[in-house]
Amino acid sequence: MKTIKVKDIKDYLGEEIRLEGWVRNYRKSGSKLRFIIFRDGSGDIQSVCSKSEMGEEKFEKSKKVSIESSVIITGIPGKHPKKENVYELQVTDIEIVGDSPDYPISKKEHGTDFLMKNRHLWIRSRKQWATLRIRHTVYYAITDFLNSQDFIRFDSPILTPSACEGTTTLFEVPYFDLGSAYLSQSGQLYLETGAMSLGKVYDFGPVFRAEKSKTRKHLTEFWMMDAEMAYVNHEGNMKLQEDMVRFVIRTVLEKCSTELEILGRDIEQLKKADAEFKCMTHHEVVDYLRGKGSEINYDEDLSSADEALLTEGSDVPIFIEKWPKDIKAFYMKRDENDDNIVLGSDLIAPEGFGEIIGGSERETDYDVMLERMNKENMDINEYQWYLDLRKYGSVVHSGFGVGLERLTSWMAGAKHVRECIPYARMIYRIHP
Amino acid sequence: MKTIKVKDIKDYLGEEIRLEGWVRNYRKSGSKLRFIIFRDGSGDIQSVCSKSEMGEEKFEKSKKVSIESSVIITGIPGKHPKKENVYELQVTDIEIVGDSPDYPISKKEHGTDFLMKNRHLWIRSRKQWATLRIRHTVYYAITDFLNSQDFIRFDSPILTPSACEGTTTLFEVPYFDLGSAYLSQSGQLYLETGAMSLGKVYDFGPVFRAEKSKTRKHLTEFWMMDAEMAYVNHEGNMKLQEDMVRFVIRTVLEKCSTELEILGRDIEQLKKADAEFKCMTHHEVVDYLRGKGSEINYDEDLSSADEALLTEGSDVPIFIEKWPKDIKAFYMKRDENDDNIVLGSDLIAPEGFGEIIGGSERETDYDVMLERMNKENMDINEYQWYLDLRKYGSVVHSGFGVGLERLTSWMAGAKHVRECIPYARMIYRIHP
Repeated sequence: MKTIKVKDIKDYLGEEIRLEGWVRNYRKSGSKLRFIIFRDGSGDIQSVCSKSEMGEEKFEKSKKVSIESSVIITGIPGKHPKKENVYELQVTDIEIVGDSPDYPISKKEHGTDFLMKNRHLWIRSRKQWATLRIRHTVYYAITDFLNSQDFIRFDSPILTPSACEGTTTLFEVPYFDLGSAYLSQSGQLYLETGAMSLGKVYDFGPVFRAEKSKTRKHLTEFWMMDAEMAYVNHEGNMKLQEDMVRFVIRTVLEKCSTELEILGRDIEQLKKADAEFKCMTHHEVVDYLRGKGSEINYDEDLSSADEALLTEGSDVPIFIEKWPKDIKAFYMKRDENDDNIVLGSDLIAPEGFGEIIGGSERETDYDVMLERMNKENMDINEYQWYLDLRKYGSVVHSGFGVGLERLTSWMAGAKHVRECIPYARMIYRIHP
Repeated sequence: MKTIKVKDIKDYLGEEIRLEGWVRNYRKSGSKLRFIIFRDGSGDIQSVCSKSEMGEEKFEKSKKVSIESSVIITGIPGKHPKKENVYELQVTDIEIVGDSPDYPISKKEHGTDFLMKNRHLWIRSRKQWATLRIRHTVYYAITDFLNSQDFIRFDSPILTPSACEGTTTLFEVPYFDLGSAYLSQSGQLYLETGAMSLGKVYDFGPVFRAEKSKTRKHLTEFWMMDAEMAYVNHEGNMKLQEDMVRFVIRTVLEKCSTELEILGRDIEQLKKADAEFKCMTHHEVVDYLRGKGSEINYDEDLSSADEALLTEGSDVPIFIEKWPKDIKAFYMKRDENDDNIVLGSDLIAPEGFGEIIGGSERETDYDVMLERMNKENMDINEYQWYLDLRKYGSVVHSGFGVGLERLTSWMAGAKHVRECIPYARMIYRIHP
């Protein structure tokens, strides 16, 4: 008898097969019938245990299951009597592999704190299973897109000798006799060195922010993909971001229909986002928001509420480009026509999911860069390697960073990014 | 005129095209001819600047290049007059985008310390370029293989509240008001929780060892892929590892012929490794090594020299399975026939590249696991979540971890793993 996975069940209709997994749930119907929702990681299937079909002895075994017992069942898959494209299993035998007495997560509503403390079990529930599979799909949609464009993976270091952006939000680590190291907040500066060797590069790993912000969009440890391209300017940078995000949307729609359905995601809304993105300058955005009642100033970043207000009524993401220099990082290239403006862009997702990408063209001139770094009180000795890129064969280059959990939360329609990573780390949360 | 990449040059023979990149090197031949080795990240091409073809004015510009100047050249690609499958460019014009005065890395031999200090420039050299591209290929050979087998990416956290294996080699990080966090040495325990939800899972990210060992196979920060599978035993675990490693070898041979040639890698040796792997028990291995003159004991792990001795004369990797329990981790499943033996395996690469994979079947019994953890003086409260996997639907499961840089060093024939990651971190090295 073949051991198969639930996802392949439709290829075995009418044939007795064997499945290995767990009991998601069960219910009885009279004394002669039991229904088990069986799961094996690849999918779920309703499994019908009937006393008349199984015989008394085997049926008795089916009565011993509980929520999350591990079981091996044999049975004959068939089409669901009423539902299209749904299958069910007529169970012929069942073996309980492992008990599961008093499984702590039940159907009733649990508080977030309880669920996060039991994250190791909570991930077994359908919605968490679906969300983590979407995360996987988003990850590989990003890398498939980049690899098809000849990008090379260039993982930047996590342990870094100094801070890339600011110092108040850094995790500090004693490093042997070399003093302190800091957990990377972004691999961008290192990636720039990679672009000068390999042309188009990206990293994709965890980054760390010791931020005390407690919002539904912040984690202290999250996954970020940074990309960097030589000989690409601000416009080319935004074009690539748009192509990539639209590819991600199409891939999730194509591969995750089951998961999106489980999550009750509005698929039509996602489909609509796969159209030409809008682009506004920061100045235009402030004009617009003030017209809508926001009190944002022309030298300010958008609040979360501003982001939601901006995208209200927009089906597609919106690029905000050309920012005031003072609220953006030192390495951003200035606009030729206005030295107070930098060629950076943020991409704001629709439906209130907030900023998902930040990027810019980078400054290429050695003296200009040196002046900026001095102005930021950066230790030039620590960053001579970064300046060297402007000394030895400097070229126009641009890049951006996308947060995996933010993008996943948008695709999955998840309210909080903490559900979009296996084990979320937040200011008050490091267990389990 | 089209702007193209060097890798696509053979599709444009005889057609004037534009290339954006850098000068790897140049030489003059008399007063009327110059040869530039041009690179653009996708590949290199010899570019011929001829005074008679270009005219005096344009030829003069070609005389101003230096090593690593950034240049945009236009020209007509053709076949190399003598070499098969090699192309060269007849330059029609050249524009120097950025100077590169006194580029510090020349053709002469530099010491390792100098090269590591200038890693941001060293990565531009051909061998480093080739090695990093092989790292990319190895990474995606691993994930393509796993994804084709329905594994789901399940990234384990880096910031963890306690140590998975030992405590002497941990990096400690102050974590807000929650005390200390530790940088993960392995995601395995977390992955086991994922396998109980998603069936087959893996993570692939940086791990950290604050080891003081200074060998050519150790980094303090390196990339590891951990995989974990529910309902898979020790034998199935080794089978999957072998299939995966052989897939990696075939993929590197198929996709990286240029890179392997640049590195002078013995390709025949790699091809031979794509055959059935050998498998010996630890006891058999010790017998064998002692016969060869090693002083290893039956309760000891292999030294680096032992590993090299074992694989001497073997074209394929060798599994060492069934280890004495006392030198392996607490979570390994004991052999049914001998309680002093665990169902773990290490995979040793040929050609002296050492251990590339460690794996095992995991203990599934709650009471046995509890006893082992107590014996290790582990804080049970901290690990209740891990024990829970043996309480709620425990199943046979197995997993393994592969070090990306180790595997890359074998594929690339690199003597030291420090060249197999963009920015190596070692006990005395954290810059740049």
